[in-house]
Amino acid sequence: MDPDVLSTAFVEHYYSTFDTNREALVGLYEEGSMLTFEGQKVQGGQAISDKLNSLCFQQCKHIVSTVDCQPSGPAGGMVVFVSGTLQLPDEEHLLQFAQMFHLLPTPQGSLYVLNDIFRLNYG
Amino acid sequence: MDPDVLSTAFVEHYYSTFDTNREALVGLYEEGSMLTFEGQKVQGGQAISDKLNSLCFQQCKHIVSTVDCQPSGPAGGMVVFVSGTLQLPDEEHLLQFAQMFHLLPTPQGSLYVLNDIFRLNYG
Repeated sequence: MDPDVLSTAFVEHYYSTFDTNREALVGLYEEGSMLTFEGQKVQGGQAISDKLNSLCFQQCKHIVSTVDCQPSGPAGGMVVFVSGTLQLPDEEHLLQFAQMFHLLPTPQGSLYVLNDIFRLNYG
Repeated sequence: MDPDVLSTAFVEHYYSTFDTNREALVGLYEEGSMLTFEGQKVQGGQAISDKLNSLCFQQCKHIVSTVDCQPSGPAGGMVVFVSGTLQLPDEEHLLQFAQMFHLLPTPQGSLYVLNDIFRLNYG
């Protein structure tokens, strides 16, 4: 499958899940997965899910501006780089964010998130 | 070596080379390396170097705000995520940027850039 199509589909799935059913994100991570959220490091699918579900905002909407992707080596993975804005219920203006994912194939042929780094740019 | 120390050293080296001796960046890439610069894809060390040396600005200064890194799998690589600002000679205000690198070890024990994705955030 075209990596650009695959990465765009992943990004749409990730943020629509984040914005509507955040608890289901746990299915995208595995035991060795890592998240760095605004400099805080969390490891393992359940710990990452707990972190994402305990953020200070319960409702949000991600609006994606750009998606870039590249194959990440012989293991069949890819790196995906996203920029966009985050809309929070009590914030007048949008927050800019950038996020990168390193996706690796599962034995079943889908993809999971090995690396996830998120930063707000305070634009 | 501590990956945080290593990634910070890499980032300092990368941007100081970019800002003072841009042609030397070619040594950080290999034939399989990929750059996506503002959505434009370039592959291979020489082509990447040519691209970086033909940007519309000849002088610039990168000011790094954050560096996050994670190990990227069993091959001994790591992903590095940088946010910062870019100062150009004829621009009054700073431009925000975000950039990610996927670094892999060389047989000689140093690191090269396999994946490089750069985006201005137009903050």
